[in-house]
Amino acid sequence: MSNENKKTKYVKKDSKRNTNNSKQTKNYNSKKTVKTTKTYNKTKKTPIKKPPIKIAFLGGLNEIGKNITLFECENDIIILDCGMAFPDGDMLGVDMVIPDFTYIEQNKEKIKGVVITHGHEDHIGGLPYLLSKINVPIYGTPLTVGLIENKLKEHSLENSVSLNTVKAGDSVNLGCFNVELIHVNHSIPDSVGVAIHSPAGTVVHTGDFKIDCTPMSGGMIDLSRFARLGDEGVLALLADSTNAERPGYTPTEQTVSDSFDTLFRRARRDRIIIATFASNISRVQQIINCAEKYGRKVAFSGRSMVNYMSVAQELGYLKVPENLIIDIDELKEYPPEKIVLVTTGSQGEPMSALSRMAYSDHRKVEVGTGDFIIISANPIPGNEKTVGNVVDELLKRGCEVVYESMYEVHVSGHACVEELKIIQSLVKPKYFIPAHGEQKHLRKNMDIALSLGMSRKNIFIGDIGSQVELCDDYMKEIEKVPAGKVFVDGLGVGDVGSIVLRDRKHLGQDGLIIIVASLDVYDGHVISGPDIVSRGFVYVRESEDLLEEIKALSLEVLENCARRNVHEWGTIKNRIKDEVAKLIVKDTGRSPMILPILMEV
Amino acid sequence: MSNENKKTKYVKKDSKRNTNNSKQTKNYNSKKTVKTTKTYNKTKKTPIKKPPIKIAFLGGLNEIGKNITLFECENDIIILDCGMAFPDGDMLGVDMVIPDFTYIEQNKEKIKGVVITHGHEDHIGGLPYLLSKINVPIYGTPLTVGLIENKLKEHSLENSVSLNTVKAGDSVNLGCFNVELIHVNHSIPDSVGVAIHSPAGTVVHTGDFKIDCTPMSGGMIDLSRFARLGDEGVLALLADSTNAERPGYTPTEQTVSDSFDTLFRRARRDRIIIATFASNISRVQQIINCAEKYGRKVAFSGRSMVNYMSVAQELGYLKVPENLIIDIDELKEYPPEKIVLVTTGSQGEPMSALSRMAYSDHRKVEVGTGDFIIISANPIPGNEKTVGNVVDELLKRGCEVVYESMYEVHVSGHACVEELKIIQSLVKPKYFIPAHGEQKHLRKNMDIALSLGMSRKNIFIGDIGSQVELCDDYMKEIEKVPAGKVFVDGLGVGDVGSIVLRDRKHLGQDGLIIIVASLDVYDGHVISGPDIVSRGFVYVRESEDLLEEIKALSLEVLENCARRNVHEWGTIKNRIKDEVAKLIVKDTGRSPMILPILMEV
Repeated sequence: MSNENKKTKYVKKDSKRNTNNSKQTKNYNSKKTVKTTKTYNKTKKTPIKKPPIKIAFLGGLNEIGKNITLFECENDIIILDCGMAFPDGDMLGVDMVIPDFTYIEQNKEKIKGVVITHGHEDHIGGLPYLLSKINVPIYGTPLTVGLIENKLKEHSLENSVSLNTVKAGDSVNLGCFNVELIHVNHSIPDSVGVAIHSPAGTVVHTGDFKIDCTPMSGGMIDLSRFARLGDEGVLALLADSTNAERPGYTPTEQTVSDSFDTLFRRARRDRIIIATFASNISRVQQIINCAEKYGRKVAFSGRSMVNYMSVAQELGYLKVPENLIIDIDELKEYPPEKIVLVTTGSQGEPMSALSRMAYSDHRKVEVGTGDFIIISANPIPGNEKTVGNVVDELLKRGCEVVYESMYEVHVSGHACVEELKIIQSLVKPKYFIPAHGEQKHLRKNMDIALSLGMSRKNIFIGDIGSQVELCDDYMKEIEKVPAGKVFVDGLGVGDVGSIVLRDRKHLGQDGLIIIVASLDVYDGHVISGPDIVSRGFVYVRESEDLLEEIKALSLEVLENCARRNVHEWGTIKNRIKDEVAKLIVKDTGRSPMILPILMEV
Repeated sequence: MSNENKKTKYVKKDSKRNTNNSKQTKNYNSKKTVKTTKTYNKTKKTPIKKPPIKIAFLGGLNEIGKNITLFECENDIIILDCGMAFPDGDMLGVDMVIPDFTYIEQNKEKIKGVVITHGHEDHIGGLPYLLSKINVPIYGTPLTVGLIENKLKEHSLENSVSLNTVKAGDSVNLGCFNVELIHVNHSIPDSVGVAIHSPAGTVVHTGDFKIDCTPMSGGMIDLSRFARLGDEGVLALLADSTNAERPGYTPTEQTVSDSFDTLFRRARRDRIIIATFASNISRVQQIINCAEKYGRKVAFSGRSMVNYMSVAQELGYLKVPENLIIDIDELKEYPPEKIVLVTTGSQGEPMSALSRMAYSDHRKVEVGTGDFIIISANPIPGNEKTVGNVVDELLKRGCEVVYESMYEVHVSGHACVEELKIIQSLVKPKYFIPAHGEQKHLRKNMDIALSLGMSRKNIFIGDIGSQVELCDDYMKEIEKVPAGKVFVDGLGVGDVGSIVLRDRKHLGQDGLIIIVASLDVYDGHVISGPDIVSRGFVYVRESEDLLEEIKALSLEVLENCARRNVHEWGTIKNRIKDEVAKLIVKDTGRSPMILPILMEV
């Protein structure tokens, strides 16, 4: 296909799309009317030289989660997704990781909107934090918008934000961009990829996706649209890399239905408890269908499960026969064989409903012999051990437990190697950018592109903060943009950094010793103390000798300093620290944090 | 087979074995002569009624590692293995977990010896701690004894302990027990299972094992002996459950040789770096063989790798062509294509050689483009994330990395389902006790026994502290014995318990606030302070307002108490804690540890 040809088609398609635009997007909170298309036809006036498009990654590369990508063309910027990530094991006490929004704040006036591909936390979880910094309209499909609305309510932001629903297949104009939403399969309904039509050309981002020809609802991914885009000419493709290490295909969600059917029969007179992701509405739909077939009532346990299900039911994404769902408090009114309990906790999260059941800490459900428990999820890397512990506890209580690969009770939401080949082959992009994944996933996705004949120089593997500029003639990395991991801890956003984490790690590993003394303001001699307080270091009652030694040593150091007229507190504290640390390491082989506190009286 | 028949054969076999006994066991440190067989023939005198045997589990059940099992008959006790376990993620700062030896100390005089099945840490790591409590002779195969000797040297125990080598196929008399060592395949050479011949009958423990018909060295597991034991009659079988969840067979170690061959060819002019378990001597042998074939020198990196290899080479378990091994300092004298570097760190351990290379923190090796890195191990559950991080870092530096299931560069050391079936079918025990594994592994191993037709009542699933009594007529659980997890932290053994760990967790998650004040000894008014010190809570420089608020509030509480004549320090501290906690949770949503410290002046 020649460039000329491509351009003509492109502009035609565009004008057609623009005509439909205002009726395609429905303004959800009706604060703002949807943008019109004024800037877009610029390309018509300058057909000779197309401007480049810049793509900046604030998250989602070299990490799982926190997906957020910026597209900039002719002084307009759009944001695709705004997610959060779960903290790594070394981010002690951190509740959530969100993107660094500095670059967005610096370019506030250019931002035309945020387009969200689907309602998972790693794509919407950062929105409240972004929206508390800048007010910018949000666009997404109905379920996605419903889930965002819920989230904004929790942050009391629902009235100040423009939330707009766009159906898959429709598009929205944002500055010089026309963003088309394309239906894809994933583990939450109403997921889309996007074709970003810009003066620079069309950039396609798959979002999180897989190819399922027989999904539970919503129909197969709109492969035909991806194919047509490929025929029309695509400048760049950004594709989900999450499963790029896995050969073959992700099985269809229907395989899970078959497994559920088998297991519901096998459970006989047992109570069935199924743990899955709260957001996996299709999975819950399958459970509901199976429960109806086998004459069981369904109850939900876990706050997020209840939340997701109420939004999904309200918006019609969960089809529930009348009187099938019961409240968790009604469980005792039914015999075990008439019950399915759907619960959170499939990742072994310590505070989740399933974990509480396993450790006899659930207020309403006690498990044991006669419970048939299905964990309908695979452990996310890093969670294997906690999931295993929960399984062990449930088994010890006499429950039957179906987990991991024993039956096909879970399928992934992401495309495996063969699916990635299909999408790349259909879209036929000039440039390829692996997205969403750690380095190893990005590399594997690159390998797939190479195996399909793409040249290495047309592939860009970035990092957060990377920015790439591309047009028909070139793709090049340009100056970095500010990017990073901002920690949310309780109500605090960004007030926990590397020093605080270093201290937490030290305290958590070794505990602490506090040495406190009151000194005479005139001569520095000890008036009161030194008192020794320790936490997380040794069992105090059995270590009184050691603590007495520390006390005596500290006193000696303090009196020595006073005698030698050393009154500089920094010096005195350091001497105490050094001497006490030496004593402790000799006696115990440990290095607790040592905190001398001096008071002047 | 009738009971009568069994008994006759059993006694015959025994007398034959006893004749050979003294020449079969070689006294390693020659402090003690090997026991003779005086008590054993008792069974001959009382053929009518056999005594029962008791089996007590101090470790290895419902956990991975810390394997230790006690067998007691007619007032004699033998100990099988004495391992350590790695701490779980919630055992903050703990270096190692060892068994609680209380029960052993209580029965000191009955203990006849410790038999070790192989030289892995989860089977020998607890020995120095046991031997510092009681002196008891140790028996094992030559490599196992060599590795134990090394370990005892580190604890300066090598001269006070009787270490005895017994070859696989031979046996040793310990009180009324005759313990026969049976060659098995595993991921370290010289591994054995045991047949414990006792007045109660024969109990077989597989130890850690797999069936490999073509291992690198040492030959195939002595299946024939297991079969003969089965024919002679076995009272109980204890079998390794580690891989009971995995269907099929563990592939032979030879498949790894083939993969190495392919990869050495593919590496061409690159430097090859292979990470594997330091104890996997067969794996290193394969690397050495391949290196020789492709004309590369081999260097070792990592303290434990160097240690294991020196013991293995010294004892002839590692066969090294002359001049093949070079020192790590000589690396620079050879071009990359002439080098294989064998390193620790296959589990992503933060301080290991491979991790240091990945994070540019290795003193002698810098990695990057031109390095071909093979991780010849699978992540142990819980380590997936750290291994993934190391792979990502290596890839970012431009290394090529082969990991996990990309090629068959690793095979497990444990038997899968089909192998477990074979051993159970050959040994034909009356009772079956799944050993070595978490609850889910033990259950799966039980399921295998059930599938082979064993009755549920003849299977015992225990926990640490469980004790079971068995004889021809019955198997029953009897009173528990003291058992638990003893934490080693630095030089301290057992001085870190649940309170210390709870504090470490709290400090690690939320940090701490110290409020220190000097009070007038007479009226309780504040003389100095309150001063606020925080660590691991917030970034202090950006939270001065909050800290000032805390200070003002604390002063208010203190002065209020003084005015109202509240002088009980416990009460005053609690009031400060409560008020400050309320303020902090309102302002930050967090709950740091709050430590008020009062001094009297």
